[in-house]
Amino acid sequence: MIVDGKQLRPIWLDADGRTVKVIDQRRLPHELVILDLTTVDQVIEAIVEMVVRGAPLIGVTGAYGVLIALHTAANEATYVKYCQRIAAARPTAVNLAWAVARVSAAVQSAVSPLERMAAAWREAATIDAEEVARCRRIGEHGARLIAAVSRAKNGAPVNILTHCNAGWLACVEWGTATAPIYVAHEQGIDLHVWVDETRPLNQGARLTAWELGKAGIRHTVVTDNAGGHLMQHGRVDLVIVGTDRTTRTGDVANKIGTYLKALAARDNHIPFYVALPSSTFDWERRDGLREIPIEERSADEVRFVQGLGPNQTERVLVPPAGSPAANPAFDVTPARLVTGFITERGVCAASEEGILRLFPEKK
Amino acid sequence: MIVDGKQLRPIWLDADGRTVKVIDQRRLPHELVILDLTTVDQVIEAIVEMVVRGAPLIGVTGAYGVLIALHTAANEATYVKYCQRIAAARPTAVNLAWAVARVSAAVQSAVSPLERMAAAWREAATIDAEEVARCRRIGEHGARLIAAVSRAKNGAPVNILTHCNAGWLACVEWGTATAPIYVAHEQGIDLHVWVDETRPLNQGARLTAWELGKAGIRHTVVTDNAGGHLMQHGRVDLVIVGTDRTTRTGDVANKIGTYLKALAARDNHIPFYVALPSSTFDWERRDGLREIPIEERSADEVRFVQGLGPNQTERVLVPPAGSPAANPAFDVTPARLVTGFITERGVCAASEEGILRLFPEKK
Repeated sequence: MIVDGKQLRPIWLDADGRTVKVIDQRRLPHELVILDLTTVDQVIEAIVEMVVRGAPLIGVTGAYGVLIALHTAANEATYVKYCQRIAAARPTAVNLAWAVARVSAAVQSAVSPLERMAAAWREAATIDAEEVARCRRIGEHGARLIAAVSRAKNGAPVNILTHCNAGWLACVEWGTATAPIYVAHEQGIDLHVWVDETRPLNQGARLTAWELGKAGIRHTVVTDNAGGHLMQHGRVDLVIVGTDRTTRTGDVANKIGTYLKALAARDNHIPFYVALPSSTFDWERRDGLREIPIEERSADEVRFVQGLGPNQTERVLVPPAGSPAANPAFDVTPARLVTGFITERGVCAASEEGILRLFPEKK
Repeated sequence: MIVDGKQLRPIWLDADGRTVKVIDQRRLPHELVILDLTTVDQVIEAIVEMVVRGAPLIGVTGAYGVLIALHTAANEATYVKYCQRIAAARPTAVNLAWAVARVSAAVQSAVSPLERMAAAWREAATIDAEEVARCRRIGEHGARLIAAVSRAKNGAPVNILTHCNAGWLACVEWGTATAPIYVAHEQGIDLHVWVDETRPLNQGARLTAWELGKAGIRHTVVTDNAGGHLMQHGRVDLVIVGTDRTTRTGDVANKIGTYLKALAARDNHIPFYVALPSSTFDWERRDGLREIPIEERSADEVRFVQGLGPNQTERVLVPPAGSPAANPAFDVTPARLVTGFITERGVCAASEEGILRLFPEKK
């Protein structure tokens, strides 16, 4: 995407072919810092510590991670262990294990060390390019939904609520939930985005607001508590969110709190869409609530809030020092609460039947 | 309540009879600071800036405010204007205007300046004492609900979720939503409280967690996003919240985000109770969503988060400096989502019929 007049991506492979460059998303929006990843430990740390985050992006990071594993492993056993460790760095998003498996398979089909490296590079770059293309198509399909609302409102601003950051920072370009917004904005549709701040790590307030601001798109940050009230008062026309993993039956794991917005959308007859590339479907699972592993992250992410202090970026402790906290990072929105999925192949109903109509090869 | 071995209240009248002492709730939990209020401007600022907050407490503050108005007004016209300004300091909680009107009426029925001051003092002290008694009775009625869950679970810990702070800090003693928790804890019932942090001002993480910690009650702070997930997984047995104003038909205005928890409770068949003294009923209103004024507070409350920094209490900016924010402070939970009200007269259904059965004089 263009940021301050320059092309910027959340991840790219450096010209040396073995250094992965990433935006340190922990530092946004107040600082734009680029980190170099040259070892598998750095790749894993970047994923675990959420230097990179978002299902498609951690998939692409895992893909390039296999290339780093090949470059740095002293022998085959270490390489295999490296790949396993990368794939297991975070449990909820399905893209990570999927991308690592796909690059590993490409490596396995090659023979010489040089061919293996070329295969890893080719496959990772292909996954990267595919995600970009998928997100663009998600944007085009989703923009038609926004255009329809705009027409129904006679061109009055379309109010879209989104949760967390399913923007280009979470993908490579365009984003998933934000892709329809970017494309509709390109098309000149008048719109405004309610940005859930998305506690505990505030990816909405920090990242989505930053993205939309840089793109010149009108937006307002609200607490995660506010969405229901806005919907009750007719101030939200549609909800679009991303997902970290969606079952073949349409159950949606996404950032904690998504389920609450889906309930409010249903209670107020507001369409609730989930935008995702097909790489985020988990074709093996049928019951999201029982089968999708939900990552429990550090309590300190709840207890401390990071922001710009009087002098620099600081962390402040909110609750009493002695109060424990819990931090489930995702929840599952049952398919019954989802109006539809926006995929690279079009929009479908949130049911196995609807999904398989777009992806018949998964029957 | 007893805090660190000492009796503490959020408000009291000093021995001089004209200085109101309050805990500065903006500074908790990291600092316990007592402020003196001796002018009407200080009273209004304390209410607006949320030095004191919570429907019953701002009612009591307003009541003592009338006494300060009498002590400081140069003439009758100024006194009347003072009372009007105090009553209008915050719009949503009905207790404020109610308490100011009640003390003003007592003043009006007296004649000499000395009698007027005595009447104001007597009426304010009566409102104060009545709130304490009402909250205690709310606690006793509500504890029976908790005891019933405890029996049904064969004594396993009862998990209660609460939103914001409807504790003794929001009242004078016991609290509303927390009163049943304190009484059940006294009775030796094993329980655990999920404390919603309650953005933007974090009254849950800062105040409820502090109260429960000081009382030795087991609790865990969670983001406002987490409650739905906890309910889906059977980790919440009941929800108890307070309210700033409840219509005679049972619509509940409470801290923003309450509605989302009520939706999740209904979706998961979990009882959702609202605890309130009768002073919080608005007997004049029937349609909460249309008729209760919702305060829109400063966007900076969303943009900045206060906590303990490396050296002292600090505020940090979370979103980009250029991103706007909105801050509706309350939402309305329709009566249809409420299991029942816990009042000083007992528990009733969330309907006009149920409420009037307990308060027949309001028919």
